[in-house]
Amino acid sequence: MSNQGKNEKLERMRHSASHVMAEAVQSLFPEVKFGIGPIIEGGFYYDFDLPRSLIPEDLHIIEARMAEIIASDFPFLREEVEKEEARCIFAYQPYKLELIDEIPDERVIVYRQGSFTDLCKGPHVSSTSEIKSFKLMSIAGAYWRGDERCPMLQRIYGVAFETQEELEQHLERFAAAAKRDHRKLGRELDLFSFHEEAGPGLVHWHPKGATVRRIIEDFWIEEHLKRGYEIIYTPHIAKIDLWKTSGHWELYREHLYSPMDVEGQEYLIKPMNCPGHILIYKTRLRSYRELPMRWAELGTVYRYERSGVLHGLTRVRGFTQDDAHIFCRPDQLEDEVVGVLEFALFMMRTFGFEEYEVLLSTRPEKYAGTIETWDAATETLERALKRLDLPYRVDPGEGVFYGPKIDIGLKDALGRAWQGPTIQVDFNLPERFDVSYVGMDGVEHPVVMVHRTVLGSMERFFGCLIEHYAGAFPVWLSPVQAVVIPIADRHLDYALKVAAELKAEGLRAQADTRPERMGLKIREAQLQKTPYMLIVGDKEVGNATVSVRLRSGEDLAGQAIEAFKAMAREAMEKKAP
Amino acid sequence: MSNQGKNEKLERMRHSASHVMAEAVQSLFPEVKFGIGPIIEGGFYYDFDLPRSLIPEDLHIIEARMAEIIASDFPFLREEVEKEEARCIFAYQPYKLELIDEIPDERVIVYRQGSFTDLCKGPHVSSTSEIKSFKLMSIAGAYWRGDERCPMLQRIYGVAFETQEELEQHLERFAAAAKRDHRKLGRELDLFSFHEEAGPGLVHWHPKGATVRRIIEDFWIEEHLKRGYEIIYTPHIAKIDLWKTSGHWELYREHLYSPMDVEGQEYLIKPMNCPGHILIYKTRLRSYRELPMRWAELGTVYRYERSGVLHGLTRVRGFTQDDAHIFCRPDQLEDEVVGVLEFALFMMRTFGFEEYEVLLSTRPEKYAGTIETWDAATETLERALKRLDLPYRVDPGEGVFYGPKIDIGLKDALGRAWQGPTIQVDFNLPERFDVSYVGMDGVEHPVVMVHRTVLGSMERFFGCLIEHYAGAFPVWLSPVQAVVIPIADRHLDYALKVAAELKAEGLRAQADTRPERMGLKIREAQLQKTPYMLIVGDKEVGNATVSVRLRSGEDLAGQAIEAFKAMAREAMEKKAP
Repeated sequence: MSNQGKNEKLERMRHSASHVMAEAVQSLFPEVKFGIGPIIEGGFYYDFDLPRSLIPEDLHIIEARMAEIIASDFPFLREEVEKEEARCIFAYQPYKLELIDEIPDERVIVYRQGSFTDLCKGPHVSSTSEIKSFKLMSIAGAYWRGDERCPMLQRIYGVAFETQEELEQHLERFAAAAKRDHRKLGRELDLFSFHEEAGPGLVHWHPKGATVRRIIEDFWIEEHLKRGYEIIYTPHIAKIDLWKTSGHWELYREHLYSPMDVEGQEYLIKPMNCPGHILIYKTRLRSYRELPMRWAELGTVYRYERSGVLHGLTRVRGFTQDDAHIFCRPDQLEDEVVGVLEFALFMMRTFGFEEYEVLLSTRPEKYAGTIETWDAATETLERALKRLDLPYRVDPGEGVFYGPKIDIGLKDALGRAWQGPTIQVDFNLPERFDVSYVGMDGVEHPVVMVHRTVLGSMERFFGCLIEHYAGAFPVWLSPVQAVVIPIADRHLDYALKVAAELKAEGLRAQADTRPERMGLKIREAQLQKTPYMLIVGDKEVGNATVSVRLRSGEDLAGQAIEAFKAMAREAMEKKAP
Repeated sequence: MSNQGKNEKLERMRHSASHVMAEAVQSLFPEVKFGIGPIIEGGFYYDFDLPRSLIPEDLHIIEARMAEIIASDFPFLREEVEKEEARCIFAYQPYKLELIDEIPDERVIVYRQGSFTDLCKGPHVSSTSEIKSFKLMSIAGAYWRGDERCPMLQRIYGVAFETQEELEQHLERFAAAAKRDHRKLGRELDLFSFHEEAGPGLVHWHPKGATVRRIIEDFWIEEHLKRGYEIIYTPHIAKIDLWKTSGHWELYREHLYSPMDVEGQEYLIKPMNCPGHILIYKTRLRSYRELPMRWAELGTVYRYERSGVLHGLTRVRGFTQDDAHIFCRPDQLEDEVVGVLEFALFMMRTFGFEEYEVLLSTRPEKYAGTIETWDAATETLERALKRLDLPYRVDPGEGVFYGPKIDIGLKDALGRAWQGPTIQVDFNLPERFDVSYVGMDGVEHPVVMVHRTVLGSMERFFGCLIEHYAGAFPVWLSPVQAVVIPIADRHLDYALKVAAELKAEGLRAQADTRPERMGLKIREAQLQKTPYMLIVGDKEVGNATVSVRLRSGEDLAGQAIEAFKAMAREAMEKKAP
């Protein structure tokens, strides 16, 4: 069977498993009101409105009931009914009635198996017995429609596979991923927090998380300057007119915050940095000789996302794009795209991502500009990819309306995909804002504008990094690189002296001078994934050395301080993992 | 006469001069509607609603008419009248009527001289002949009440002094200041811009201005890390409740932007960074052993200011505070204040400010906390000032309601005062947010919180720096440190090679390869206040040297490239002016 065929079969099975789970829940809680039960990556869920909160033990009972339904080999029956009839079928299911009202067609589809009927387009397996190895994973709260103004339902997540072996492999991967969940590690390593009082989806970077971010940002700036970029800063708010001109007000309205009133004029918090960059570009005439201009900004933008879809650092309401805009002539586009691709891959490799997938998205049905400019730009992107011998996949029609784009997806240490760098050609904004340059012919020509990030956003990239490294950041990124741990109180002064000496060398070092036992200090430094634990006792004081314990568990006894410094410096300079 | 007596006399004279100017304008434009005519630093202005736009020549005519009025020796007559009578006197003066309506008293004061009557509390000189040396300076547009929804009036600025000599000194100083006006230099040196399309008071930092800012920020971060600060990042928006808890909603409402609606909850763009820092502090219990915690953020805040009061970079609507909060125990406050004072003075000296005024502001009439805590904190601030032998002035009752503070005012190269660093003790927020630490006694105690900046804000400080240096930034801050200028086309390659070599050394260098004459390139580099112009011709190519022209005009012919690099490096490292 083809991969695609296998996937479709798996998806059908998972979807059917969610219906079987719903039937099981209904048999245990006859008063249940059903939300929706879709498939997701690797599995499925269903949302229920129940008379009491579920507890983990309930999952076993539901699983047992599901096994009975599966064993009963009930067929899945598809039926098309009049809306009126559907309203009778779901008379006691208010959420389903809400959904029925929103279906534009006169007739709707229902699926039945055993004693359960659902509003559902399918497809499903033909009988419950086709559902193979499954497991219910967890219970979570979920607002109806992901909207915090709607009732909170209870969601049960499940997974299903063709074989027990595949299920077990999945459960192992899942356990490994859970251990490196950036939300969990964020708390344990004191990296960042969210606060209900401030609002969901708004990241507060703690000193340790901010240290990692600052190092990444410094590195990012340095590498941009090397490549002929200039850094700029633009404000976080602007008059709404700017967003009407840009088209964001019309096209991205559901992701914009509501306007603020200032002296009778409406202002918006920025969802993008582009218009600010364009205003700077337009402060004077630009000559063909000045192009390309490459302007980068670590610009924090705010976009509304429903509270139900927020997820740690990877789906937030405010994020700092590592943004840049390249203003160039059409004949410069190819070289610029090659430059950005090389830059993005360099960044990815620096952070230890060796595998990635490159996707070229072409003209969608609705598009700005002409077919000719689209074709020319798309060919330019392809030429750039070929010049670098980069394997890529074409996603036809998946470009944004304003131009074709290249996305780079990363694979982390567990082989999971993450959204990474992006390069987008834009025909829309130069036209809407009349952004041009004076050509060799003395005439104004529209500029070609490229939007690009080489990390994505600081928030999402940091979340990805935490999971990729399982919190054990390489030395150059570690918030605390070395902890000096005295064996006994009489070694305190020496520990402080060593820490001070390392700090003077530019290392992020500290002495653990708390009145606690050495064992506990080592354990805590290990849990904090500190690269170097430097243990100092009588011998070390006597010989002016340190005993280095690496977080891998490896011990390097009696290192001269200079030798340790050289080792740490080398690890930093090489950006070694 | 005491200085104060002299100042009061000058102010009376200037205020009277504004009335005389109004009389002169009325005699030229009988249909004039009067706005207000107050004194300002060094002079006075009056706002007029006139049938046509004024031109510079009008000022001479008005001056001549003023001289006649002064020569006529009209007495200034003070009169208290019923509001009803005032409404008759000003029946054709709608702006005055508006003002009369707002006066709570039953009777109002008017002043008359010659043919002119004004609604005015005085005081004035006794006769127009007491007005000595004066000059009208400029015409500007000004919204009635500084509000852009109100009519635009025409404002005439004037100055007046006791003697012609003082007037001339003032005019010289004024001309010198005008030359270094940061708004003018901002345009000429391509440093920043404001855009009507985005909204007034919102700074767009161009590559060159942003380079200076980035260097200052990097230096600022480095110096904070050296002093045991940690850097954090907090979001730009938060639920309004946070600002209700903090008291800002109640007390600073007129400077807050209007709320944004998110899922039925109101969010505000932040006017201060404090609550975000407090939320991070409160993510766990803090022990007395962990204090002090010093958390710094380059936090961009937005505060509403009427468009009429906005002024270049020094009065804006969005600005990046070089903010930090110190959470400490009461017994640590003195050392912390000493540390901040030393830090602030170090920063000031680094940027070439040798003169400053230190002001200690004490408990105002309305205050949070107890008299005991106020007295203790004020004494602590005084002890810190004395430990550093810093001369200071006490401004009684001028503290903010939440605690006493120390302000440092800078004097720039022209002797003008600028608002600089500030250190504020805060008793209010720790109580409102219940911010505490666990003491040695195992009991929770309220933390002492210090707000401080060592520059003020990036925007205002940059504006001040531009004027202080008259745009000729010291080498370490110069956006472009060296321009290599080829004498003829055949020296282009060598110019590019030299520029590349300097860039590789970390210098901000560029070659001017435009097809223009050498003279023009030198002139432009000079106008851009570039520290080093490196002129290269046959001799330089032959000897592998550069001829250095400093922006002072000094020439250093035939420098080996290595020697030039060493010179530039030394200037950078020493942060020499």
